[in-house]
Amino acid sequence: MTKPTASHPFDPLSPEEIALVVQAVKHAYAEKNVIFRVVTLAEPRKVDMIPFLEAEHASKSAIPPCRTAMVQFYLENSSDFREIHVDLSSLKVTKELKLTGKHSYLDPQLMDECEQACLKDEQVQEAIRALQLPEGAVVCVEPWTYGTDGMHDMSKRILMCYFYMRLNDHGDANYYAYPLDICVEMTDDLDVIGILTLPSGCHDRVQPAADGIKPFDRRKLHKSSEYHPELAKERRTTTRPYHVVQPEGPSFKTDGNLITWEKWRMRVGFNYREGLTLHDITYDGRSVFYRLSLSEMFVPYGDSRAPYPRKAAFDLGSNGAGVNANNLKLGCDCLGSIKYFDGYHHTISGDPLILKNAICCHEIDDGILWKHTNYRTENAVVTRSRILALQTIITVGNYEYIFAFQFTQDAAINYEVRATGILSTVPIDLGDSVPYGTIVAPGVLAPYHQHLFCLRIDPAIGGHANSLIVEDSVPMPLDEPTVHNPFGIGYTTSQSIIDTESFLDTDIAKGRVFKIVNENITNPVTGTPIGYKLVPHYSQMLLAHPSSIHARRSEFCSHPIWVTKYDDRELYAAGDHTMQSLGGEGIESWIKSRPHPVSVRNEDIVLWHAFGTTHNPRVEDWPVMPCEKMLVSLKPVNFFDRNPALDVQLSTQERNCSVLVEDSGKKS
Amino acid sequence: MTKPTASHPFDPLSPEEIALVVQAVKHAYAEKNVIFRVVTLAEPRKVDMIPFLEAEHASKSAIPPCRTAMVQFYLENSSDFREIHVDLSSLKVTKELKLTGKHSYLDPQLMDECEQACLKDEQVQEAIRALQLPEGAVVCVEPWTYGTDGMHDMSKRILMCYFYMRLNDHGDANYYAYPLDICVEMTDDLDVIGILTLPSGCHDRVQPAADGIKPFDRRKLHKSSEYHPELAKERRTTTRPYHVVQPEGPSFKTDGNLITWEKWRMRVGFNYREGLTLHDITYDGRSVFYRLSLSEMFVPYGDSRAPYPRKAAFDLGSNGAGVNANNLKLGCDCLGSIKYFDGYHHTISGDPLILKNAICCHEIDDGILWKHTNYRTENAVVTRSRILALQTIITVGNYEYIFAFQFTQDAAINYEVRATGILSTVPIDLGDSVPYGTIVAPGVLAPYHQHLFCLRIDPAIGGHANSLIVEDSVPMPLDEPTVHNPFGIGYTTSQSIIDTESFLDTDIAKGRVFKIVNENITNPVTGTPIGYKLVPHYSQMLLAHPSSIHARRSEFCSHPIWVTKYDDRELYAAGDHTMQSLGGEGIESWIKSRPHPVSVRNEDIVLWHAFGTTHNPRVEDWPVMPCEKMLVSLKPVNFFDRNPALDVQLSTQERNCSVLVEDSGKKS
Repeated sequence: MTKPTASHPFDPLSPEEIALVVQAVKHAYAEKNVIFRVVTLAEPRKVDMIPFLEAEHASKSAIPPCRTAMVQFYLENSSDFREIHVDLSSLKVTKELKLTGKHSYLDPQLMDECEQACLKDEQVQEAIRALQLPEGAVVCVEPWTYGTDGMHDMSKRILMCYFYMRLNDHGDANYYAYPLDICVEMTDDLDVIGILTLPSGCHDRVQPAADGIKPFDRRKLHKSSEYHPELAKERRTTTRPYHVVQPEGPSFKTDGNLITWEKWRMRVGFNYREGLTLHDITYDGRSVFYRLSLSEMFVPYGDSRAPYPRKAAFDLGSNGAGVNANNLKLGCDCLGSIKYFDGYHHTISGDPLILKNAICCHEIDDGILWKHTNYRTENAVVTRSRILALQTIITVGNYEYIFAFQFTQDAAINYEVRATGILSTVPIDLGDSVPYGTIVAPGVLAPYHQHLFCLRIDPAIGGHANSLIVEDSVPMPLDEPTVHNPFGIGYTTSQSIIDTESFLDTDIAKGRVFKIVNENITNPVTGTPIGYKLVPHYSQMLLAHPSSIHARRSEFCSHPIWVTKYDDRELYAAGDHTMQSLGGEGIESWIKSRPHPVSVRNEDIVLWHAFGTTHNPRVEDWPVMPCEKMLVSLKPVNFFDRNPALDVQLSTQERNCSVLVEDSGKKS
Repeated sequence: MTKPTASHPFDPLSPEEIALVVQAVKHAYAEKNVIFRVVTLAEPRKVDMIPFLEAEHASKSAIPPCRTAMVQFYLENSSDFREIHVDLSSLKVTKELKLTGKHSYLDPQLMDECEQACLKDEQVQEAIRALQLPEGAVVCVEPWTYGTDGMHDMSKRILMCYFYMRLNDHGDANYYAYPLDICVEMTDDLDVIGILTLPSGCHDRVQPAADGIKPFDRRKLHKSSEYHPELAKERRTTTRPYHVVQPEGPSFKTDGNLITWEKWRMRVGFNYREGLTLHDITYDGRSVFYRLSLSEMFVPYGDSRAPYPRKAAFDLGSNGAGVNANNLKLGCDCLGSIKYFDGYHHTISGDPLILKNAICCHEIDDGILWKHTNYRTENAVVTRSRILALQTIITVGNYEYIFAFQFTQDAAINYEVRATGILSTVPIDLGDSVPYGTIVAPGVLAPYHQHLFCLRIDPAIGGHANSLIVEDSVPMPLDEPTVHNPFGIGYTTSQSIIDTESFLDTDIAKGRVFKIVNENITNPVTGTPIGYKLVPHYSQMLLAHPSSIHARRSEFCSHPIWVTKYDDRELYAAGDHTMQSLGGEGIESWIKSRPHPVSVRNEDIVLWHAFGTTHNPRVEDWPVMPCEKMLVSLKPVNFFDRNPALDVQLSTQERNCSVLVEDSGKKS
């Protein structure tokens, strides 16, 4: 992040702090080889933060909780995985644990090493020769995390290396257009432990390489799968330029990681795993949320043929939204006046690493905010909606995800996810088809899959004691002695307050609404508790069987809403360590593990929203997929005493300087 | 609409045509008083249009079907309601029918007359006096259509006049903040037939005025409900200007009502009832949709106390999206380069009337369209999404609706609805509450209600013979002899083709997708029929009891999807005449009325999508409600051979001219 003058307890570790911590760890494990996997802020305990924030909000001085780093590392080799906490003032180790049986995430550096090792392996070279690839073919190897399937759930980290080729000298040729028939199992110390042929048609065919490899079918060669401008030169020229001009600059202000904009105030955080996080969010000085973050995401594939059940990626826990964040380029990813925040990470040897422009902050015009025309006077009063977007884009192999928190002037927060990038492809024989994939180019199958996200919502609606209300809109009974509904048109709401930790389901037929309320504060106008509602993104949940390893590993994917009592240690809905996880570590297990049901009424609670998309590819998603958008909203419900955006400036031609267009596109 | 040189068969009537038709009708009914209610284009029969459009698309000449006007009028008085068709070349009447028992819509002119008549009525004045309003109070009377409740379903048009007051000389003071305790029933020949007091608390109280009127409770007086800038002067000054600059002008071209933009080509239509309509929509020369329009909308209130069951508005059939279209103001309703289309209507005496700027056409930047970063080369390729919006905004009394068809570069069409404006309010005693409304200001109840829209989708996917496929994503059975699913993670799709006219339900748990396909055209890449899918807006359906008059009148509101065989006469999902309709005239009745089930497989079909929102007001919706957005999409599914937006220009700083912002909002 941009270096603040003095660190706030929520600020990510600075490069200087990373360097100090690394030095301390190296000192503590002198003469041993420390392979640094994580050096990040251990966020302060909430119990320590609350008094500090209260003082801060009241502009009083207070001593911040001490800063602590959380470090995960391999000692000597990948069988000794450890986590320690280091106090940043004393540089003393305050906590140490061995993460036995756990594995660290897969990062681009290891992916690169795997590719090199694969290509150097003589048996792999033999398999490649057996493919009899066209002249000029360059083989690309893409390592995937190993989705546990019970077959290699050994103590080692395993990587599944899928093979592709490009036929072009150009490094940006789309090699996903040529998925090859082979695949390699590799340990993270770069030993090839198996070479497999992939299924090539509707039948299942996984066998040792020597028997099964058939030559590459040259009829699969085609030219329509390129997307890079130097390879796909046909570009429409009809789209005329569109500039966003903010002559007085943006409406937001930043001071280090503190952002203030249109009555909103929040702190930006960043870490290797979740990427963008938000902290201590207030509107007009009133507390709304303590922390918002993407907790986890899961991308399981529906192709049942071995080895594809191993394609099931936890893109946060096993890859990291922070370490895979794009370097956002001015003018490419956003329009208008843009402020960037850098992230900091480190190499495996502990050197601080800058992740340039990992987050962008900018404003977006979102059309009309509110309007009314008095039909008697014909006077229209109209305001436009300005949005503050905090956006990060990650690349995980073939796919891109665009994550944005959007703040609105009417005190709502949206979380928008856009899925784009390139489909994960596998080979298929020409003329064949399978029921769990779409053929997107000759010999190229894009298997069905799901993208399931889990948004972690840590509310502080008017304070930390909150409750969750499930509200349905229900018809009144037909007229009866105690109910006055003579025309059968009446309806009311039925509310239930959730008492103990549980999952909840959406119900569109009932118009179900999920309200986080503060039962201790009554809205003076409505006479009801102040609250915010979650507007979910309605989604099909996990399709894999509840008994499957996928389901056991991705507990959050079985229901769209979960509520738990706040616990500093519970940040990741599929568990702290998803790499080759065996299940039993996620949100359902937390709840089940409590000795007795835990109250979530008038307590410090956390809401979790699982949502996503069942992505059965269209050919229109190839070779690069137009964004598929998902949107979740958090909106005030009887939190304010009227429309909080009533005071937004009117939308006028004087302010907006629009241009009238005459017939045939002539400017007037 | 902007006057074309020569009328296209889909062009709305020009003012000259309206004048000619009116003259012909007056001539035909010489010496009788003709009260013109509708003079609009009777769109040509599809069977006549298809050969014409085929020739037009092939740039061949063809004789257009003759233009016909549809005229609805009262003869002498409102008991003789008629419809005739007039051939525009001969000016001969080609069809004539008496609309016995039907009623015309309520327009602002009649609303104004009602108000004046109410206020002149001595009994009404007496009731107003009984209210003992504060000094300076100006009483406003707002006539509503009469939602049939079996009590006054007489042959006359009835209006329900609700009373409000403003305490301010200012004509734009928010009188909805003071709903008064009385209400008047009036016939459309302006006779007061009843004065009622309204219920004032949780008990039901409707009785003759003399007994029930109590003085206005002065403790209800408050200052927080104004929204007009001259009355609500507190405005935030933090939002800095934001201009959309299109230095080379917009990317669209218009020629009369023909619009071409980014491979799209379509014709804009407009009529008094549906407002904006779209015709003959093609992408890259390929036929996609024949006609898109909002067919109807229904706004029933959930307050069961008489007379509120009469609050149930068909805002299209009984009010008209065309006649209530806002005059869109440059720079107020949209940003950038904007083209407006005028609409034409007429006075009740038949004089052509311009509805200035009823539709706007402009472009919107919609963030990233697609992106991929090759993690090996770190080269990012990114394009931005430009949208073409065709927008109209209507005011129906207190509410505003913003309707926009949005065309995207990746060949999708979105239909966005934003609900804004002022809540309909009724009085409530201070300190009281009811279970079907929210108190939004002292003594002001905003009753629960639903907004249910019906989008009519007349597809022409690669031609007019289309089918509807319902596709679910379903888990494969666990491994068994005939199914290979050893890990329980496989899933496939199950498809059913709809054979005959019917309704369909959404099913999120099954990831249900609705595909309109052309079974006669196979996609060469995927080997499946070309198609477009409907991405519904998931909504709670009508809450009123199926036996209620609301349900009988609004047949489309019982299920989200309907498919029918195309019929030129079936445009309006709740029937042609919704004013005081008694039910049995809508989409369900059409289907039931066929002598036998009608095939919709490989036929000319129409899809209807009912969606909306259950609006239990928040106090944040007061005094003017921030837009609530709804979005429906139509997206290609294996219609093209790859991403149709692959050729969109790259997003670069050179093109976009963004500005870097440093810490604390300084421009660099």
